[in-house]
Amino acid sequence: MNISHPGYLGVLGGMGPLAGATFAMRVAALTPAATDQQHVPTLLRNDPRIPDRSDARMRGGEDPLPYMREGLRFLETAGARVIAIPCNTAHLWYDELAAATALPILHIIDAVIDDLRRMGIARGRIGLMGTPATLALNLYQDRLARHGYECIVPTADEIDRHCVAPIRAVKANAVAAALEPAAEGARRLRARGADAVVLGCTELPLALPHDRRAALDVPLTDSIDALARAAIDYYFDAPLHRQAA
Amino acid sequence: MNISHPGYLGVLGGMGPLAGATFAMRVAALTPAATDQQHVPTLLRNDPRIPDRSDARMRGGEDPLPYMREGLRFLETAGARVIAIPCNTAHLWYDELAAATALPILHIIDAVIDDLRRMGIARGRIGLMGTPATLALNLYQDRLARHGYECIVPTADEIDRHCVAPIRAVKANAVAAALEPAAEGARRLRARGADAVVLGCTELPLALPHDRRAALDVPLTDSIDALARAAIDYYFDAPLHRQAA
Repeated sequence: MNISHPGYLGVLGGMGPLAGATFAMRVAALTPAATDQQHVPTLLRNDPRIPDRSDARMRGGEDPLPYMREGLRFLETAGARVIAIPCNTAHLWYDELAAATALPILHIIDAVIDDLRRMGIARGRIGLMGTPATLALNLYQDRLARHGYECIVPTADEIDRHCVAPIRAVKANAVAAALEPAAEGARRLRARGADAVVLGCTELPLALPHDRRAALDVPLTDSIDALARAAIDYYFDAPLHRQAA
Repeated sequence: MNISHPGYLGVLGGMGPLAGATFAMRVAALTPAATDQQHVPTLLRNDPRIPDRSDARMRGGEDPLPYMREGLRFLETAGARVIAIPCNTAHLWYDELAAATALPILHIIDAVIDDLRRMGIARGRIGLMGTPATLALNLYQDRLARHGYECIVPTADEIDRHCVAPIRAVKANAVAAALEPAAEGARRLRARGADAVVLGCTELPLALPHDRRAALDVPLTDSIDALARAAIDYYFDAPLHRQAA
């Protein structure tokens, strides 16, 4: 018997909790494994008590950074060797978080860009869906522009109706009620010329389940699955996602 | 700011990993919560390196108990206040595990019995699906008999085709291939007079997704959801599941 831990994939989850757990599930589901023992050892700290990220950035709500730093320390002490944060808005604090840990943190927006390329979308117009903070503070726009993409951002009213409303519904476990408003958000971006749409908040893939996406007739990239693929690649020593900063 | 942890729901997962992560997801999905902050803080140690439980009991394979004990110590040190183990076969070691930790461990078979009652099935014939070890060592039969139920157990050949085959398929991420053999297992138990069928291995609910169950025309109890409900009840201080030993 050999109880040795080459190290966990450490997941700073809870933002929200359904998204955090779904991320861990998608890591397992997307891993090429034939038995239990070939899967990625994962430690999910699904702590929903972290203050709301959008509230902090947009309305002066309580700062989530100390909670997230504490989460990173917890995962580092527990034996994580790499960190994934299945929350797009939390990446507004990416630099502060990276400075707070010796571990590499996979960057969710880089993972989405890798996912667009994996789907063969190396340029073009990308429609964005996400929280008001993610969209207002250009979390996606800056990084996508650097990679040669153009962004299409919903109007303030569309963000309210087609991003915030389904995100809230998912957080309140009213997943079925989230489908139609989120689908309409993707359709509007497609109508405005989007070559692909980013589900740039980890609640949005839960609003739009995989089997309902083909009907939207526009390629979607899903920030949960993109980050799961990045984590699997990292764990199996693919170099692509090694440095995300 | 107040970083205080009243304690995690500690999940000894990885047996298998998709089941462990799905359990965490179902805890979030079944919790009556309106915002992130109202969810159950969960710490999932989804470590798939624990040796196979059925191999150990049926074929003299490596003993998983030291690994599971180490997992319990890990969760206890990390701040768990109650333990859930989303693996039925692991409950063959329940007494040894309970003796190894000061924390209460929710018992998955008791959770299934509570779930049968919740569905209004307080007596009758219960068809069992599970691993060969779970079925051969009477993990369900003894406890169900104590509560006045009668059990219908598949034949050795049926266990191979309709339990082991779909369980292996799920562990290898071939979930679609698991559906038909698992469904046929439930249909055969119904044909032999089962009033309900227990998906008594945490891979089986993944083989038979919720939206495919109505077609089977027999009530199913799902050991992942049953344990998730027990954990939520415990966390919100419902007394029912307080003592499972």
